Amino acid sequence: MSEISELTSADKEFLQQYLPPPRPEDTLKERRRGLPFVTLTYASSLDGMISLAPGLRTNLSGPETKSMTHYLRLHHEAILVGVGTAIPDDPGLNSRYPGATLEKQPQPVIIDPNRRWNVGDSKVLKLAQQEQGHTPWIITAKTARISPPTTEEVNGQNFELRPLIGRTRVAASGDGETMPVEWLDWVDILKHIKRMGINSVMIEGGATIISTLLSLPHLVHSVIVTVAPTWLGEGGVAVSPAQKREEGERVNAARLEETAWRQFGADAVLCGRLLQE
Amino acid sequence: MSEISELTSADKEFLQQYLPPPRPEDTLKERRRGLPFVTLTYASSLDGMISLAPGLRTNLSGPETKSMTHYLRLHHEAILVGVGTAIPDDPGLNSRYPGATLEKQPQPVIIDPNRRWNVGDSKVLKLAQQEQGHTPWIITAKTARISPPTTEEVNGQNFELRPLIGRTRVAASGDGETMPVEWLDWVDILKHIKRMGINSVMIEGGATIISTLLSLPHLVHSVIVTVAPTWLGEGGVAVSPAQKREEGERVNAARLEETAWRQFGADAVLCGRLLQE
Repeated sequence: MSEISELTSADKEFLQQYLPPPRPEDTLKERRRGLPFVTLTYASSLDGMISLAPGLRTNLSGPETKSMTHYLRLHHEAILVGVGTAIPDDPGLNSRYPGATLEKQPQPVIIDPNRRWNVGDSKVLKLAQQEQGHTPWIITAKTARISPPTTEEVNGQNFELRPLIGRTRVAASGDGETMPVEWLDWVDILKHIKRMGINSVMIEGGATIISTLLSLPHLVHSVIVTVAPTWLGEGGVAVSPAQKREEGERVNAARLEETAWRQFGADAVLCGRLLQE
Repeated sequence: MSEISELTSADKEFLQQYLPPPRPEDTLKERRRGLPFVTLTYASSLDGMISLAPGLRTNLSGPETKSMTHYLRLHHEAILVGVGTAIPDDPGLNSRYPGATLEKQPQPVIIDPNRRWNVGDSKVLKLAQQEQGHTPWIITAKTARISPPTTEEVNGQNFELRPLIGRTRVAASGDGETMPVEWLDWVDILKHIKRMGINSVMIEGGATIISTLLSLPHLVHSVIVTVAPTWLGEGGVAVSPAQKREEGERVNAARLEETAWRQFGADAVLCGRLLQE
């Protein structure tokens, strides 16, 4: 386990304006309104990939950017990943940044439509038992066995299962054909998380979730990408949003504005906000 | 045409150690030995792409990195691109950096195995006629009609055609099958360029040429990548080297060391050297 160290004040200043804003002491009722502050964050190779192959954990970034990730986790109320990341990576989803108390730990949220994740064996649950993190919330599909919200006991620990509002829509694919796709309704998922009292969520992966949200700029407040000076090579898992067209012509699928770059060790970190349409 | 402005001294200092080294006044015989200094340079989106679709010119980088490109061109004796870039982009392949005299202009070199490029209509030839650049060298396949080296007159201007040493080899594809592929022998191409008296060459594209050379680290001295804060989206043209395996396991296809990052406008520029195997 790599050491997590304090960021320099220049590093913190660089990140400052992209963090969720400080909130007044809301009542729980106020906290539950609307949508949370959403930060997308991931580490990418120069060929835009996050791992060498599906389900293969790939270490991309250096120790300096790892410290940054744990700093960012401490500044969000929840961390969200998909089941395709939770299973192969078995991430801790807590913050090991110096001074992280249990009270300051973010809430782990896993999107697991068909309840594939074996939470009992997970690092998240282990950390919760050691009081180094919280028991996870698992967002499942409506069609999965648990609905409405309930709790399940695993290793003597209760964790919450919440229904995901999955919808089937007809989506246009790149070549003009249409086909029904299972669609995660992100407005519903995020509203749901906000109703639980979460004001800010850091979304860490996987590639499908990040790529989808890059095309939904109205739901995303900050994007923080670490770029590592390496190429994973053909056949890796890429973060790339769906094609976009304007008047029949292909245009850039997503853009950042208010950008700032900073070198962290051998990597660079890019912060920005998605250009709204 | 965007304005090319002088780089700051901090920008120049950042690039300095990745430029071809100054050479003593070699005799022509000495200049012709061995291989030239090779710099790979390209602009990429965050999803590792250089254009929205094959043959579609895509403006990725801002005015600050454009100035850098013209500064780099002035510091190399040749610029090389493939025909897949020359045709859609119709690049000038000269330097518009302040103070670029004809004598300091780099030699344009186009890899065009089957002589598809219509040089007569090209910007390169137009600039040569205006004495703002040199007439191009075109490297053709052995099987193409011109061999040995010869010149051809277009619009009253002679340009050189040189044979490319193309070879057919059996290459392993990702899934273990083998198939014959047309192979550009880069050692031969680069030796060839060196024999013409060229000490340094800046290779600007396209994606296939860059991806191939990223897997040949012994031939490449510097890599300079501009990363633009945008995603082009699925189906764009990606720079990504072939998969690499060690003891059956997939590993990173290429890595940079001695890296340095610097923000240029909204983009970041990464300089480094390919890790040798």
